[in-house]
Amino acid sequence: MHPFDHATALDGAASDPLRSARASDRYWTFISPFGGVSAAIALRAVLEHPQREGDPLALTVNFCAPIAPGEFAVRTRLVRGNRSSQHWQVEFTQGEGAEPVLAASIVTAARRPSWSHPVSAPPPLPAWESLPAFPNRKSLPWVAQYEFRFAEGAMTLSDTVPEPPRSARSVLWLRDAEPRPLDFLSLAAMSDAFFGRIFQVIGRLPPFGTVSMTTHFHAAAEELAAHGSAPLGAIADARVFHRSFCDQTGELYGAGGQLFATTSQVAYFKV
Amino acid sequence: MHPFDHATALDGAASDPLRSARASDRYWTFISPFGGVSAAIALRAVLEHPQREGDPLALTVNFCAPIAPGEFAVRTRLVRGNRSSQHWQVEFTQGEGAEPVLAASIVTAARRPSWSHPVSAPPPLPAWESLPAFPNRKSLPWVAQYEFRFAEGAMTLSDTVPEPPRSARSVLWLRDAEPRPLDFLSLAAMSDAFFGRIFQVIGRLPPFGTVSMTTHFHAAAEELAAHGSAPLGAIADARVFHRSFCDQTGELYGAGGQLFATTSQVAYFKV
Repeated sequence: MHPFDHATALDGAASDPLRSARASDRYWTFISPFGGVSAAIALRAVLEHPQREGDPLALTVNFCAPIAPGEFAVRTRLVRGNRSSQHWQVEFTQGEGAEPVLAASIVTAARRPSWSHPVSAPPPLPAWESLPAFPNRKSLPWVAQYEFRFAEGAMTLSDTVPEPPRSARSVLWLRDAEPRPLDFLSLAAMSDAFFGRIFQVIGRLPPFGTVSMTTHFHAAAEELAAHGSAPLGAIADARVFHRSFCDQTGELYGAGGQLFATTSQVAYFKV
Repeated sequence: MHPFDHATALDGAASDPLRSARASDRYWTFISPFGGVSAAIALRAVLEHPQREGDPLALTVNFCAPIAPGEFAVRTRLVRGNRSSQHWQVEFTQGEGAEPVLAASIVTAARRPSWSHPVSAPPPLPAWESLPAFPNRKSLPWVAQYEFRFAEGAMTLSDTVPEPPRSARSVLWLRDAEPRPLDFLSLAAMSDAFFGRIFQVIGRLPPFGTVSMTTHFHAAAEELAAHGSAPLGAIADARVFHRSFCDQTGELYGAGGQLFATTSQVAYFKV
């Protein structure tokens, strides 16, 4: 079993509104599991549900509190369904009677054929083989689960805060370190797999944590399946660092240059 | 009372988890009230709540079904609060025992002083007075509630679909038609006040509807208050139209060039 499938596995019957999952050691970050894996668990609870129709269209994950090591309950609810879309909510709680540690909303929709017009283009990237692999083995556990090949904006730490601050933009290839065919679960996780922009901009690792992340999916299931386990072309950037919070945006492109997902998040930082 | 305050008013005690509001005629669109006003009602329910702490940081609104004319119930729930942020959910239902027509999540947070770094810059815009006002009186009711002055990408309809399609980008000044001091409620509404990008790109008005919208706020309450009722500098764009859905992004800047909000949404279209 691939480490990602192990980390995102749910116990209990797929139709059960209350299932459980476990915080993954292998995707551990500073004080909690990697948020992308938590997002994927919420999405998996919906995608496995027998009432689910259509492909994921929108996912918002609110990280309410750190998830501690061990098990957590996963509560899934179909808020509203209609002919072409469904609105779901998922909450994680840890401990009897506790308040949620994570709350997500997920929209699924029928991706019917239509007029198509790709506005944005994939980033110009040298061949995967020609770029050095980011040294991911001495970092946090979750980082070692991905292979990053940066063409621009690789994170480098420095003793002093650069003046002016570095660019927040990164352009890279991104894939699971142990290759795995792309699906909506791994795409959701990879939409959170950009290093916090604050690290890159100031060259240090201050206290940091994503508060809310939204990912929009722009492809149908069979388009992701056709991509296979090739790396995704990715761009990450930020628009503002202000009053203890910053944003982060991302675009993820498939092998044929198709835009698969866009994402934006707000994160806390202390500098 | 300003039409926007009238349209976003809630009945019932501010601490009541169940309040009510009404679909606004003056902000009516094709088959439902303007989504920006619905977003503002959800946000108002949270901001008026006596337990609320901090400023809005993130707002996601899932438009589950059209809101019919008349009253709807507004249910507000504090999912989780901690020292620096709160996670809220708001749902609208219309009719006894009905499923929600709207589900929103709202994060509020303490905007403490910090290192500040504005990455993105406001769009280059000619002076407000030098640009013609978009003819908003013969359009949908909600359009007449705003004043739009386009420097680039004003919507123009045409008999045939332009080939290649037009740019999805618009650059404009935007404000309430009847001036009103900016606050988080009007900022939330204005983050949905861009015409559907599909209209502009193909020069027609096909069936269209926002499914999910996320807005991130980047300013503290006193920064919005200092802006007053000046117009906001705005950029709207899209990255993809594919398989019946498209996206839309937006940035809203205050008078001093400060980035106040960023937004992205996914919308259904039929072409």
